[in-house]
Amino acid sequence: MLDSGLIFASDSRTHAGVDNFASFCKMSLFERAGDRVIVLLSSGNLAGTQAVISLLKQRCAKDGTPNLWSAESMFDAALLVSDAMRDVDRRDGQHLADSDVGFNASFILGGQIKGEPPRLFRIYAEGNFIEASTQTPYLQTGETKYGKPIIDWVITGSTSLNDAAKCVLVSFDSTMRSNLSVGMPIDLLCYKRDSLAVDMQRRFEEGNAYFTELGRQWSEGTREVFRRLPSLDWAVP
Amino acid sequence: MLDSGLIFASDSRTHAGVDNFASFCKMSLFERAGDRVIVLLSSGNLAGTQAVISLLKQRCAKDGTPNLWSAESMFDAALLVSDAMRDVDRRDGQHLADSDVGFNASFILGGQIKGEPPRLFRIYAEGNFIEASTQTPYLQTGETKYGKPIIDWVITGSTSLNDAAKCVLVSFDSTMRSNLSVGMPIDLLCYKRDSLAVDMQRRFEEGNAYFTELGRQWSEGTREVFRRLPSLDWAVP
Repeated sequence: MLDSGLIFASDSRTHAGVDNFASFCKMSLFERAGDRVIVLLSSGNLAGTQAVISLLKQRCAKDGTPNLWSAESMFDAALLVSDAMRDVDRRDGQHLADSDVGFNASFILGGQIKGEPPRLFRIYAEGNFIEASTQTPYLQTGETKYGKPIIDWVITGSTSLNDAAKCVLVSFDSTMRSNLSVGMPIDLLCYKRDSLAVDMQRRFEEGNAYFTELGRQWSEGTREVFRRLPSLDWAVP
Repeated sequence: MLDSGLIFASDSRTHAGVDNFASFCKMSLFERAGDRVIVLLSSGNLAGTQAVISLLKQRCAKDGTPNLWSAESMFDAALLVSDAMRDVDRRDGQHLADSDVGFNASFILGGQIKGEPPRLFRIYAEGNFIEASTQTPYLQTGETKYGKPIIDWVITGSTSLNDAAKCVLVSFDSTMRSNLSVGMPIDLLCYKRDSLAVDMQRRFEEGNAYFTELGRQWSEGTREVFRRLPSLDWAVP
């Protein structure tokens, strides 16, 4: 979440053990130009996250029920996602617990509704949620650790949307080198503050030339930085 | 584990919740110059790791019992550590399980015994263990993820001992920026292949000038690499 807007990114890997993995888009978009842009990124059990998104879309299609088109604020939108999660959990939770699985869907929700500034939330599997702020402008869910240092080094509120997009791609590159459960394609979406429309959206497939070059230059560049670091003098305390 | 020797490093943070943390050295050394250098790094429940090390030291002091001074190979040394872990688990395991804690001590063991090349092991809490190889020359335990990308970018078998020492310090710097349960001082030990003696050993306290400068140059350097990365052209597929 930057002064100039929002950047969203998600991978596409889903798996039920290493012998069963597939590719599903984890980014959902609710856009009504001039009124609102709402983006939902999902993480965790695929049956659970798909059910939540299907419920949200079904409710959007039905006039009169509270839904993402009628929500007056991003906070209300987060409550609607949370409600849908709890509805799915009520239906499936005990059955999953009986098989020692558990309902572990979680979401990142962000966007802008006319009359409000852009806002960004992380919704936990229990349905409670936190909101990003200027102190901590970004939120991650799923395999967060490998890709966090690069975000911490680079991102502040004043980072440009283009730089933040680059940073998120490098962060995914680091993560995919270490965790097989994160994989291409990467979906990337850029939202400019107050535009109330999706400004740029891209999908990076396996072998994408730009993504590959970014990873190559990043790892060569960091190796070069490393080479130039001062050597340790073991004798000096 | 490099062609030219071994580098070991450990932090000193131990905690029982965020309201109770303290500093304990997690590196133990068994050195008999000209015969063997054995280094043990510990991770997990402090009562457990201390008990294991006390047992190993007590057994070392008693002639006739198999111990780290009499072990004929590093593999046998790993078995001795594993035996001590299981002895502690037999005594404490059920009591800990009754309080939902569990015996979660784990170790990295490395060094060289005369007649063998240097070897490096990771011993799991269950007492089984794996050995590093040329394909995967390094092992981590505890909070491993934040500091792993830098090691992957830099370390191969032919990396020099001094470069590997730098790399390990940068890896700890990244980890400590993200995880409060990892903290200074950092203990660092360098073992030159076939020297059969500890060649260099250093402790980096909070605020150490070299460590601070390393972290500063690394984060400035990586930010500069980032600035030079090609920008994304949203229009190009």
